[in-house]
Amino acid sequence: MATATQYLQTKAQAAKAASRVLAKSGTEVKNKALGNIADALKSREAEILAANAEDYAKAKASGMSESMLDRLMLNSQRLTGIAADVRSIIQLPDPVGESFDVRILPNGIQLGKRRVPLGVIASIYESRPNVTIDISALCLKSGNAAILRGGHESVRSSSTLANIVRDSIEKAGLPADAVQYVDNPDRDLVNQMLKMRDYIDLLIPRGSESLIKFVRDNATMAVVAGGIGVCHTYVDASADLMKAKDIVFNAKVQRPTVCNALDTIIVHNKIAKQYLPMVGVELAKAGVEMHCDERSMMILASQPDLKLKPAVADDWGKEFLALTAAVKVVDSLDEALKHIETYGSGHSEAIITEDYSSAMRFLDEVDAAAVYVNASTRFTDGSQFGLGAEVGISTQKMHARGPMGLRELTSYKWIVMGTGQVRPG
Amino acid sequence: MATATQYLQTKAQAAKAASRVLAKSGTEVKNKALGNIADALKSREAEILAANAEDYAKAKASGMSESMLDRLMLNSQRLTGIAADVRSIIQLPDPVGESFDVRILPNGIQLGKRRVPLGVIASIYESRPNVTIDISALCLKSGNAAILRGGHESVRSSSTLANIVRDSIEKAGLPADAVQYVDNPDRDLVNQMLKMRDYIDLLIPRGSESLIKFVRDNATMAVVAGGIGVCHTYVDASADLMKAKDIVFNAKVQRPTVCNALDTIIVHNKIAKQYLPMVGVELAKAGVEMHCDERSMMILASQPDLKLKPAVADDWGKEFLALTAAVKVVDSLDEALKHIETYGSGHSEAIITEDYSSAMRFLDEVDAAAVYVNASTRFTDGSQFGLGAEVGISTQKMHARGPMGLRELTSYKWIVMGTGQVRPG
Repeated sequence: MATATQYLQTKAQAAKAASRVLAKSGTEVKNKALGNIADALKSREAEILAANAEDYAKAKASGMSESMLDRLMLNSQRLTGIAADVRSIIQLPDPVGESFDVRILPNGIQLGKRRVPLGVIASIYESRPNVTIDISALCLKSGNAAILRGGHESVRSSSTLANIVRDSIEKAGLPADAVQYVDNPDRDLVNQMLKMRDYIDLLIPRGSESLIKFVRDNATMAVVAGGIGVCHTYVDASADLMKAKDIVFNAKVQRPTVCNALDTIIVHNKIAKQYLPMVGVELAKAGVEMHCDERSMMILASQPDLKLKPAVADDWGKEFLALTAAVKVVDSLDEALKHIETYGSGHSEAIITEDYSSAMRFLDEVDAAAVYVNASTRFTDGSQFGLGAEVGISTQKMHARGPMGLRELTSYKWIVMGTGQVRPG
Repeated sequence: MATATQYLQTKAQAAKAASRVLAKSGTEVKNKALGNIADALKSREAEILAANAEDYAKAKASGMSESMLDRLMLNSQRLTGIAADVRSIIQLPDPVGESFDVRILPNGIQLGKRRVPLGVIASIYESRPNVTIDISALCLKSGNAAILRGGHESVRSSSTLANIVRDSIEKAGLPADAVQYVDNPDRDLVNQMLKMRDYIDLLIPRGSESLIKFVRDNATMAVVAGGIGVCHTYVDASADLMKAKDIVFNAKVQRPTVCNALDTIIVHNKIAKQYLPMVGVELAKAGVEMHCDERSMMILASQPDLKLKPAVADDWGKEFLALTAAVKVVDSLDEALKHIETYGSGHSEAIITEDYSSAMRFLDEVDAAAVYVNASTRFTDGSQFGLGAEVGISTQKMHARGPMGLRELTSYKWIVMGTGQVRPG
């Protein structure tokens, strides 16, 4: 029996070899493989759902929370949605081979950049089995091989899906090895993956803050980490309060469990007395609990039907992922900017204002992947930003920032076409 | 007395604070600071040369090699050259603030990216004190703060230069703390720098392969490593042999101690008998020693006046940085590609050919930062590629590949300007 190390090494070598074939493969054959995946998600639905039912039963018996169980669960409708996402990736332009920055140098050399795949992309993620399809499909379209390690609670679902992907790739005439699923439960394999710089070009951790921190601290290859969003919306003294109400409500309530949802409402004191009760009643109707600083509590405490708690120190800079919002009153834009600089995670930050200078200063000074004026932070998303799909949202500055789509899974090479040029002494 | 850790922490905090000011500073004031640096390199020449003379004397006494001593040495002419390089950076466009990928989304949001500095860039480098000015100037222009740690043998020169930079920055009205020079000789400080992810956004190691490997293995922040170039030039069966002779000669001889110099000549057997003696005699005249595989040795052994040695296994994939070239005869383009894949370092690779299909295959299949047809690999360089200057040459695929100029020292943020948009359910 192969040891866990040999097992992983074999998969990594196979992925690397397949990545070379994939890098040279044209758009048509890659789209064919994607079409096969979408078809198979429906034609092999029974197999997928049976594997998922096993995962689900085991997770439920182990006491997994309802929200986690919901993330794990697949059904016919969800598979249809996943298949539709794969088909939408077929429609996206292939980033590989794009030429850019092309020019003729004074010495006659034609110089330019050509977009190329990164090579092998590994991802370590938790729970949701659809990530297995999303990342496989995006890697495939961008000419990269993938090594996937999902959560142990979804291992049957994800390895079934990975097998379907491999079959689909092979049916299109590409190497099945382009997608490798690490189904060996040995936890030490994650540590080993982090050291495989010779095989893995980019590692994308998706999941809890502790997972992401562990990966960043220990990986020897490039890591694009993201997915942690502590998002503030600052309602300026000059804000249109109706817009501010709708935007804050949307940012908090529309989908509270995701990284671009609002965490902290910052309100200028000039409009706090008018604004906070307005938005508070709407939020309360949607079940939002407000963790208020002293000044906002003074304003809101007398209002009926609100869910209020005094804010504690931990509420600032916290990603709630739930129907909870911290609330703070400030005396100035400067104070709001300072708070965001201190507590923001560099994901998405918004100002609601009708004041031109405040808007410009906010855009200039906030250091985050996405900086908003008068819109909901819920838009920070590959599909909303027109990338079609995303492997994740980068909160770092290197390589790619914000939603990462197909282009962000590529690098480039310089193409130098001469007619005999040499460099003068 | 502050401990070494406190010393480094203080510098890092100061750099981070200064980086925030620099990020908001306009092109004019940054160019003013650059102009001050160029002026001071001449007006304070005596001070610089005195510090350098001390470094030089100490290095010479310790038995440093002539080539290393030459790299360490500054004189009036070299300072004039360094000042001219700084002035050329003034002429380059400021990358910060550039807007790109701007568009109006169907919901009316104006979405785009705005180029921003990375923040704090640290560099660990060896010997050459001019790197202190180069990196300071490029970081300054791109709105980044810099933390610099040069080799201990150049500490007097580099810290004098860094002081001049700091004075020049301050005179322009910007924070001197934007450039920090780590002159404390404690070697453990390098280890500590590698763990300062909260302060350092990008680390650029420049120097020996062992330094670069150590940094990549131990750094917790993003690293752009490069500077190791094992460069092949493949002379195809269809090559114009005169072009091939000039290009190979230039790539090997014009400046043999740098990373884009030729290391291995690969020759197709069909033209080897004609080509190798032609190029061999030229290379020998320039003092080049050829390390020949069996087939090239058979062809060249009878030629007079050549410097030949049988190649050993270590010659393949070796960066010679000297007047030495490995020579190999192959039977096909495939064999050449395989050799390059096995032994290349992903820096610069060239084919000399008049065959269209061979040229296209080489461009497609070689995985390197710069891939050449019919030109010398010596062109892989920021100034030759039109970037004006470079902090280094990346041989990795993430963030930037090949010569890294000002733009490669930036990131971007997404700018989202709305009029009240919320995300629909």
